[in-house]
Amino acid sequence: MKSAHAVPENRLLLGPGPSPVPPRVLRAMAAPLVGHLDPDFLRLMDGVQESLRGLFRTRNRFTLPLSGTGSAGMEALLVNLLERGDTVVVAVNGLFGERMCDVAARAGAKVVRVEDAWGSPVDVDRFAEAVARSRPVAAAFVHAETSTGALSDAGALARAARDGGALPIMDCVTSLGGAPIEVDAWRVAAAYSGTQKCLASPPGLSPVTASDEAIARVRGRKSKVESWYLDFTMLADYWGEGRTYHHTAPITAIYGLRASLDLIEEEGIEARVARHRAAQRSLLAGLAVLGFEPLVLVPERRIPSLTAVRAPDGVDEAIVRKHLLTEHGIEIGGGLGPLKGKILRIGLMGDGARIGNVVRVLAALGDALARLGRKKPASDPVEAALESHRSGR
Amino acid sequence: MKSAHAVPENRLLLGPGPSPVPPRVLRAMAAPLVGHLDPDFLRLMDGVQESLRGLFRTRNRFTLPLSGTGSAGMEALLVNLLERGDTVVVAVNGLFGERMCDVAARAGAKVVRVEDAWGSPVDVDRFAEAVARSRPVAAAFVHAETSTGALSDAGALARAARDGGALPIMDCVTSLGGAPIEVDAWRVAAAYSGTQKCLASPPGLSPVTASDEAIARVRGRKSKVESWYLDFTMLADYWGEGRTYHHTAPITAIYGLRASLDLIEEEGIEARVARHRAAQRSLLAGLAVLGFEPLVLVPERRIPSLTAVRAPDGVDEAIVRKHLLTEHGIEIGGGLGPLKGKILRIGLMGDGARIGNVVRVLAALGDALARLGRKKPASDPVEAALESHRSGR
Repeated sequence: MKSAHAVPENRLLLGPGPSPVPPRVLRAMAAPLVGHLDPDFLRLMDGVQESLRGLFRTRNRFTLPLSGTGSAGMEALLVNLLERGDTVVVAVNGLFGERMCDVAARAGAKVVRVEDAWGSPVDVDRFAEAVARSRPVAAAFVHAETSTGALSDAGALARAARDGGALPIMDCVTSLGGAPIEVDAWRVAAAYSGTQKCLASPPGLSPVTASDEAIARVRGRKSKVESWYLDFTMLADYWGEGRTYHHTAPITAIYGLRASLDLIEEEGIEARVARHRAAQRSLLAGLAVLGFEPLVLVPERRIPSLTAVRAPDGVDEAIVRKHLLTEHGIEIGGGLGPLKGKILRIGLMGDGARIGNVVRVLAALGDALARLGRKKPASDPVEAALESHRSGR
Repeated sequence: MKSAHAVPENRLLLGPGPSPVPPRVLRAMAAPLVGHLDPDFLRLMDGVQESLRGLFRTRNRFTLPLSGTGSAGMEALLVNLLERGDTVVVAVNGLFGERMCDVAARAGAKVVRVEDAWGSPVDVDRFAEAVARSRPVAAAFVHAETSTGALSDAGALARAARDGGALPIMDCVTSLGGAPIEVDAWRVAAAYSGTQKCLASPPGLSPVTASDEAIARVRGRKSKVESWYLDFTMLADYWGEGRTYHHTAPITAIYGLRASLDLIEEEGIEARVARHRAAQRSLLAGLAVLGFEPLVLVPERRIPSLTAVRAPDGVDEAIVRKHLLTEHGIEIGGGLGPLKGKILRIGLMGDGARIGNVVRVLAALGDALARLGRKKPASDPVEAALESHRSGR
């Protein structure tokens, strides 16, 4: 029996997040701490903000890592931008759209839902109609729905929100760093992400950005933001010129994020996105041989970093996942909500998006099917992946 | 000029927090991650909860590290236990009592303030009177007021709250791990702390505990908790039997906390508290020689881990702090609010509470005074501290 104090076993993290953290990031977090108001730390904060602006592709002054996970980022945007009685349109095509509705309702907003099937991207026309009909303060959508693997057309959704006079709010937890993000070009008013997906840092911080217009709205609220911890006006004072103490920043996590951002800048965001796409292509080539079919039918609507597939008929996905974890040390994800028991979610995120990991997970899946007594496939899934990797197709 | 990407300089952290993080804790955070629902991680969570119960001296099932700093813990307790229109009594004798009022008011509570001078402990009689008069749902106080160094009588305050039928809520951010804490014996309903003070972990987690009675109150609310991220009913399901996914736990930070808790258990809490007291005694012996007078007059009302002193007449505390930082690499704190410019705050917290650090900070303070042209003291402050250390007086 393992001790309750034992450091967990090593795992290859190919689920919906957290993703593998590179050794350089882990080492950065082992550095001794300085204080949260130390001049050296303030300089580091400035650099982190500037790098996050580069990643979000924005000039927004208010761009910083919140002291909480991606869900805290979601809550922060909604509780700052919405006041009690405000209307918000929320696109719901998976768990995280659902969560936005819950968070917005708790903040006292009137929530207008626009629903799509889990596994489909958000329908832009119906989103636009809902905005035009209900004239909301804000219209929120999930760019990359982690629960299903569906990537929505964020540029078109933001345009639809703007056309209806609403502030577009974007969840890019699973897309930032692994798919193209253009906050300014898309005229997104505010966006949030998480560090544990394509940024390849541990969970614990939520990079957020908000336009001057959005921040002006927060400053002009009739009532105080209900959350003290997430109040953007006070966070802006700590991260901005004033340097007013708000709460003690999670220094070690920010050291890790700094190292992750360095790695992203050294690779270049275009190369990084291309690497995610190539890894997914190789993965799908191998999965097809094994009989796993993609849940999201249109290729360009698949999140590059997270692939949801249906298991072959008669294969229990939970047994497959357990086999991968216990026999191969590989974590992959299952389905949630209406997709529970129906899909597997394989994340090739951040540092995980590499052909070596594609090979490992395909070999492990093949082994799992063999243990379940399935017939050997006609060709070799690993070879199919490698062929895709070599040919770039 | 330093690069915005440079890892900050090494510092000796003797301010009001963060405190020095031992190498073993830093190393623990450099371990590769597992997933937040991995069986090995779930086992680790159980162990962390059990160790936190030992530290809080409670059998409360709901005892866990929240995914945010101490301020998130404050907000969590108040937004879970209070509903709009509820009355809460809050003792205010420094910045963190003030903050509680702000947080509770944002949650829609009617706040009854009981004020004491900054630097004084909370007056138990007036606290009891306010509770008796206003019959609040809860009565909140700060055990160790980090902004002033004052330690209040938590047992007596909790009793006063109970006598008036109110749930006692305790801030023990700066006391947990460095002063005696008795959640169950004091009948505290809910308490929160932070990792970056006497627990000697980086900032980023807030250990919290709440009694079954408090959790029953949260479950029986008329309205949902306004914060989704901090909702205790959902956190209880993730950390409890159900293991229902809520948000992705900050895995690396929890590895660090595990290592910190191991160090505390190896030392023993009584020995740890005694070490904090001894370090403060030595520090005060040396400070007296240098002409720094304690802000808190009654010795047993001083926080063992954080000593606030007035600078000698005519000495600018900001110059002293800057000298310590730039010439000696030592961070200490200044005053806040009405005490700004009037006091220095020296933290000997967690791993920092050691005679070697007392010596370093006293020598640096002596050097700062000499630079300011002050007369050499009649005796040696370092020797006074060492004499106290040797004699245990």
